[in-house]
Amino acid sequence: MLYIVDGPERGKALREELESRGVPAWYIELWGHYIVATPPGARTEVKTPVKAVVELKTDYQLVSREWKRDPTPVFIGDREVREGKVFIIAGPCSVEGEEQIISTALAVKEAGAHALRGGAFKPRTSPYAFQGLGEAGLKLLAKAREATGLPVTTELMDPEDLPLVAKYADAIQVGARNMQNFTLLKKLGRAGKPILLKRGFGNTVEEWLLAGEYVALHGNGGVVFVERGIRTFDRTLRFTLDVGAIAYVKQHTHLPVIGDPSHPAGDRRYVIPLALAILAAGADGLIVEVHPDPDKAWSDAKQQLTFDQFRELMAKARELARALGKEFP
Amino acid sequence: MLYIVDGPERGKALREELESRGVPAWYIELWGHYIVATPPGARTEVKTPVKAVVELKTDYQLVSREWKRDPTPVFIGDREVREGKVFIIAGPCSVEGEEQIISTALAVKEAGAHALRGGAFKPRTSPYAFQGLGEAGLKLLAKAREATGLPVTTELMDPEDLPLVAKYADAIQVGARNMQNFTLLKKLGRAGKPILLKRGFGNTVEEWLLAGEYVALHGNGGVVFVERGIRTFDRTLRFTLDVGAIAYVKQHTHLPVIGDPSHPAGDRRYVIPLALAILAAGADGLIVEVHPDPDKAWSDAKQQLTFDQFRELMAKARELARALGKEFP
Amino acid sequence: MLYIVDGPERGKALREELESRGVPAWYIELWGHYIVATPPGARTEVKTPVKAVVELKTDYQLVSREWKRDPTPVFIGDREVREGKVFIIAGPCSVEGEEQIISTALAVKEAGAHALRGGAFKPRTSPYAFQGLGEAGLKLLAKAREATGLPVTTELMDPEDLPLVAKYADAIQVGARNMQNFTLLKKLGRAGKPILLKRGFGNTVEEWLLAGEYVALHGNGGVVFVERGIRTFDRTLRFTLDVGAIAYVKQHTHLPVIGDPSHPAGDRRYVIPLALAILAAGADGLIVEVHPDPDKAWSDAKQQLTFDQFRELMAKARELARALGKEFP
Amino acid sequence: MLYIVDGPERGKALREELESRGVPAWYIELWGHYIVATPPGARTEVKTPVKAVVELKTDYQLVSREWKRDPTPVFIGDREVREGKVFIIAGPCSVEGEEQIISTALAVKEAGAHALRGGAFKPRTSPYAFQGLGEAGLKLLAKAREATGLPVTTELMDPEDLPLVAKYADAIQVGARNMQNFTLLKKLGRAGKPILLKRGFGNTVEEWLLAGEYVALHGNGGVVFVERGIRTFDRTLRFTLDVGAIAYVKQHTHLPVIGDPSHPAGDRRYVIPLALAILAAGADGLIVEVHPDPDKAWSDAKQQLTFDQFRELMAKARELARALGKEFP
Repeated sequence: MLYIVDGPERGKALREELESRGVPAWYIELWGHYIVATPPGARTEVKTPVKAVVELKTDYQLVSREWKRDPTPVFIGDREVREGKVFIIAGPCSVEGEEQIISTALAVKEAGAHALRGGAFKPRTSPYAFQGLGEAGLKLLAKAREATGLPVTTELMDPEDLPLVAKYADAIQVGARNMQNFTLLKKLGRAGKPILLKRGFGNTVEEWLLAGEYVALHGNGGVVFVERGIRTFDRTLRFTLDVGAIAYVKQHTHLPVIGDPSHPAGDRRYVIPLALAILAAGADGLIVEVHPDPDKAWSDAKQQLTFDQFRELMAKARELARALGKEFP
Repeated sequence: MLYIVDGPERGKALREELESRGVPAWYIELWGHYIVATPPGARTEVKTPVKAVVELKTDYQLVSREWKRDPTPVFIGDREVREGKVFIIAGPCSVEGEEQIISTALAVKEAGAHALRGGAFKPRTSPYAFQGLGEAGLKLLAKAREATGLPVTTELMDPEDLPLVAKYADAIQVGARNMQNFTLLKKLGRAGKPILLKRGFGNTVEEWLLAGEYVALHGNGGVVFVERGIRTFDRTLRFTLDVGAIAYVKQHTHLPVIGDPSHPAGDRRYVIPLALAILAAGADGLIVEVHPDPDKAWSDAKQQLTFDQFRELMAKARELARALGKEFP
Repeated sequence: MLYIVDGPERGKALREELESRGVPAWYIELWGHYIVATPPGARTEVKTPVKAVVELKTDYQLVSREWKRDPTPVFIGDREVREGKVFIIAGPCSVEGEEQIISTALAVKEAGAHALRGGAFKPRTSPYAFQGLGEAGLKLLAKAREATGLPVTTELMDPEDLPLVAKYADAIQVGARNMQNFTLLKKLGRAGKPILLKRGFGNTVEEWLLAGEYVALHGNGGVVFVERGIRTFDRTLRFTLDVGAIAYVKQHTHLPVIGDPSHPAGDRRYVIPLALAILAAGADGLIVEVHPDPDKAWSDAKQQLTFDQFRELMAKARELARALGKEFP
Repeated sequence: MLYIVDGPERGKALREELESRGVPAWYIELWGHYIVATPPGARTEVKTPVKAVVELKTDYQLVSREWKRDPTPVFIGDREVREGKVFIIAGPCSVEGEEQIISTALAVKEAGAHALRGGAFKPRTSPYAFQGLGEAGLKLLAKAREATGLPVTTELMDPEDLPLVAKYADAIQVGARNMQNFTLLKKLGRAGKPILLKRGFGNTVEEWLLAGEYVALHGNGGVVFVERGIRTFDRTLRFTLDVGAIAYVKQHTHLPVIGDPSHPAGDRRYVIPLALAILAAGADGLIVEVHPDPDKAWSDAKQQLTFDQFRELMAKARELARALGKEFP
């Protein structure tokens, strides 16, 4: 149940009233609303005056489009991810060094990208694999931002690193393997930065929306959902990109949804068609891996695009955006 | 191994030569070539003169784009399914009666469809469900063709019905549940009609290509591959549309590939975004379910489009085709 | 709805009464009952006297244990597959020649097997792979039966081959790829032989039960369900054996359920633990691949057991049966 | 590459030697060995004397059975989980209160369980669901241990809670959703307590073994692998129990493997057959949910066993263990 009230005092009063009756309650300010949230189910009659009560059958109440029908924009740096527009985040899988990240940042900016991605903390299946440059990587991202003006996004793995990552990044990525790391999600509720929430490759759409609900309920309304492919019996490509999930989530949340064509493709030959399919299915943007010399990349060597390929993608995406009636600034 | 020879006599001679040495061999005329096919593997030196020998690592030799790099068009009636163009097949899940099929045929034709679909023999999970009108349904399809000029496509389930179905249909659909019905595939090699080969919802991309190889090896080069969604752990939509498979198959076969957005969507609200994603991923067309009054349909009631929705889809697909540089006649 | 009547005349009269009111109805004699089946749903009041009416929510009415609570035995030759007992079918993937099949039959008989399996018509993913010896294979199976007294089971692929296969085999296998070949299932309703119905690797448990319902509704009550693994994202072994499906189906049908450990294992090192898991989950038996010299087998070379391994399996299965309180004759 | 040396000084010297050449190296003492581990691949010739060098093709080097062929026991409290023996952990999904946990502890102990489980920190899909009693729950677990002498196991979610959980628990569970929370895994390498490592429902067997490698490489050799079902297209039961993974992992690691029948069953009617299948597939034990009044449980109400059902399970497991030649103390 969501109770919409007319200000923080009423909100806190209502939270106390509900808790005093044994109903768990959260007070949050999100998207210009003062909201008290309680678990869905039986409605509690309350004395504190409320502007509106929202009763939904799902547990993903805050992020649901059933009550907030207008799309919510999310700002990454000074740039807006929102419905009706195409937002492109591009950059290498891992930050490997100054020249690599700066040259990539310049190239993707020139091609029209709106933000730069780059991994400093890398979730690796094997403990023996390269685990990222850590803080040194974050500093290089900040340099690339200075050089290009592009806001930067990077993954956070360890909740203890939150202050560090928040210091450098304009948006924080939650990786597929951490989508149900509820400890991390709760802490990101207080991050003060927007979150790029990747769907877990073994997670349902409902679980993904609920992961977003965790972040929102703990105070952070800046959630961008990122579809990046799921695991299925078919391993022809690396993952199965689920464009149906994009179509579904666009209709069920007011928050932005983007797609990652690089991980499902697993091979740069298939990245462009998957990217176009993501946009055609209704996504609000892309996050794509690009590297100056992909074959020599320290991770994901097969799937990163060359600069030329990225320019080709951008030209095609621009045409597509026009056909779909979307802005592509 | 594929041996390309310069005429039928050489072909038959080579087949005999190979068989006399204990090598299984098939002689076929396909796509303007005289071909003797043997299992991939060790090359046999032959005396019969050959124009070319094709050695591939895969078992899907004939349908592979590795040797036949130019795309192969497939004719349905007098209309061509081919790369560089969008081909739309539309119509009801099941043929239910004269008015239903004729009105749908007229509506989809007017909206720009290139062929009419309609099921007369229906593969139903439950033995108690409606199993299709059978021959009566085929006759109604033929009437609809007369009324509109649209070629018609319909599913064949029982190999015994092949002469009957071939008499009425311009193209024969193989349903997802029959993709590995090898008996049926072999008989379709001699059908004299093009085949729309749906991917099984539990089948890999390689198995799908090999199902096409069965049809081609038994004499029929008119195969159109149809992606229609696979089964995965996520059941938010009815099936998971695999656009990655479309991107992959387009690069690995010279034959056309189209997509069915209706079955993966399972709900008409998601059909249009999935249809656009199919085209953006590189497919050569669509097969879509359309019904005059979907809620009253005898099968697949939730997922069939209304006429209005189909017109909306066609307008959007037309815009998209332009952006992708494709014809849409 | 199932109407139980007291004899064939009443059954036929009731079917006519129902059909005259527009309700589809089937009359069958199964398991000592005279049954008229109609689609589940609204009950029709009928004039023909009935002994009992069974209303179920599922479409798998006939095979359901909700109304027929006592387990139904199925006879393969003169041997009984039934609850409370372990039934072992063993033999090579494909019949390859007289010595191979006779020596295997003798070895598995001596080790305690109750029936012999062997493929004469092989469903092969590639059209270039060995497709089975056909009728010659069936004749060799019959010879092996003469030599050992073991009843024989073999797969039917082409409905046209039914008379041929029924002439030689004591039970007819439906392969995983044909589980939803409804044409074949309907014809097997009139086969006069028991059916081993393998679960499709892409099919749900409900679809499997409904495939059994197809066979029963068309007249054949001798259905044995065979779990053989499904496709999942994990390809460590060849398929994922679904012991949960065995546990579930045992509680939901009165017909026997057995398991195939060879196909999910895909490698003989894992066949014995999977076989024991199948029995511990409640299955009524096993169907296992055994070959005199597996590494030289023409198909499934990696997964067939040697004679020694089969003896080891039998000894362990016998101990397990004792612990589970089951007969192992 | 694993270098086995004859003591800590040689180990540290070798690590330094390798690092000075740019090879990442870890020094650990595990299972009575002094080991320096480096990424698999090209062998580095070293000057420091070594007793043995282990070259494996996989990245799960330490946990692999290829070099350490004798099974490794893991102690939970003073009790041993090891090959050749059945170890049973039982208890409620969540600790709900003193009476609930103490009565369950007494009941499972009397029935023969070897350890008590109970959740204090609960990973819940919805942020509105009960998240566990936290430290209060841990204290109740400690009381139950005092009352019964059973060692206790409980899940850790937040790395920050490690000191707290380690203070109360005899073994620490890693939940399915955290199997690739690499931050957590690394910290557990220094936990000083054994780890029950649940397989993620979307993770392959190789990833599971590599998660164990993370824990071992960071210093903790007490890893017990726990299979608990994966996500597949079939949702008849809650998850698909993968007994093939148990059979495979038993052959590929020297560490113990147990199974959880409660989560895949999702319904107590199927827990016993799944539990028996787990043991028959070769597992070294079970972890099972048991509750005094399951229908009133605060979480997983459908799947927890009653005390009577748990006693029935224990009696059957005991019979099975005898048939399998295993101890069941």
